[in-house]
Amino acid sequence: METNTMQQELFIKMVIDEWDRQNNSFNKLLSSLTDEQLSKEIAPGRNTGIYVAGHLIAVSDGMLPLLGFGERLFPQLENIFIKSRDKSGLGKPPVTELKDHLKAINTKFAEHIQSMAPAEWFKRHMAVSEEDFAKEPHRNKLNIIINRAGHMNYHLGQLIFLQ
Amino acid sequence: METNTMQQELFIKMVIDEWDRQNNSFNKLLSSLTDEQLSKEIAPGRNTGIYVAGHLIAVSDGMLPLLGFGERLFPQLENIFIKSRDKSGLGKPPVTELKDHLKAINTKFAEHIQSMAPAEWFKRHMAVSEEDFAKEPHRNKLNIIINRAGHMNYHLGQLIFLQ
Repeated sequence: METNTMQQELFIKMVIDEWDRQNNSFNKLLSSLTDEQLSKEIAPGRNTGIYVAGHLIAVSDGMLPLLGFGERLFPQLENIFIKSRDKSGLGKPPVTELKDHLKAINTKFAEHIQSMAPAEWFKRHMAVSEEDFAKEPHRNKLNIIINRAGHMNYHLGQLIFLQ
Repeated sequence: METNTMQQELFIKMVIDEWDRQNNSFNKLLSSLTDEQLSKEIAPGRNTGIYVAGHLIAVSDGMLPLLGFGERLFPQLENIFIKSRDKSGLGKPPVTELKDHLKAINTKFAEHIQSMAPAEWFKRHMAVSEEDFAKEPHRNKLNIIINRAGHMNYHLGQLIFLQ
């Protein structure tokens, strides 16, 4: 194998491992929380558990088109959990449904991540133009993973307060 | 420049940019919080702001030896903010002192990061043996940055509640 590819594979492993750690923590935490716990505010006057969980699931769903893995599976989540605030008055799906959605998204991720060629991770993500990417080659698909793992960590630090 | 080095520099930029984003957010948030805000619990029954801030500063200080940047600058922080819990009864340094410590650590980071050769980031960090590193080459210095940026994000999600 060429040094280039070995180096790419090592770096991909570093990033995907970090994502897997955060995503596994999220899945484990979400499974462990009851509907009642999730219905509560994370801290007084702050977002509810279900909103933050739904937000993370909607953001993960939105990663699918960004990474070129296909369309969003649950586009209805975006309006409720990304474009609107917790207390917008919009109805939220039941927790069991959200948990099922997360499983479906994770399955889709796993399929694509396993079969992705290393060089593909370093191609542009779908929200950056070819022109901008030529100037800013760090705006690649793997960078989406770095960024979203950080975002997940941020909200995991909050969700843990529901325990 | 060789493709190898260009590739390494791209990886490094992706990771250091993420670290800088989180570390800058932390610095900005810490500057904006008053001593009174920091003295409060982040959520009822949870850690105080000063403990979480001190914890992040102690963890950053501990990165110096791991990355081969020298000894910890403020080794006394480890016992108070990493090895002990918030309500251990141990005295905590005043907020102004902690803020100064953070500045000193950031200065040290900046000096070393600017002058570090790209290949150096892919060498082992100082808590992994040469033997283990030969089998697990992802346990390098850059991986420490990925991991600690995530850790910082986790606690930033909490500290924001003090605002």
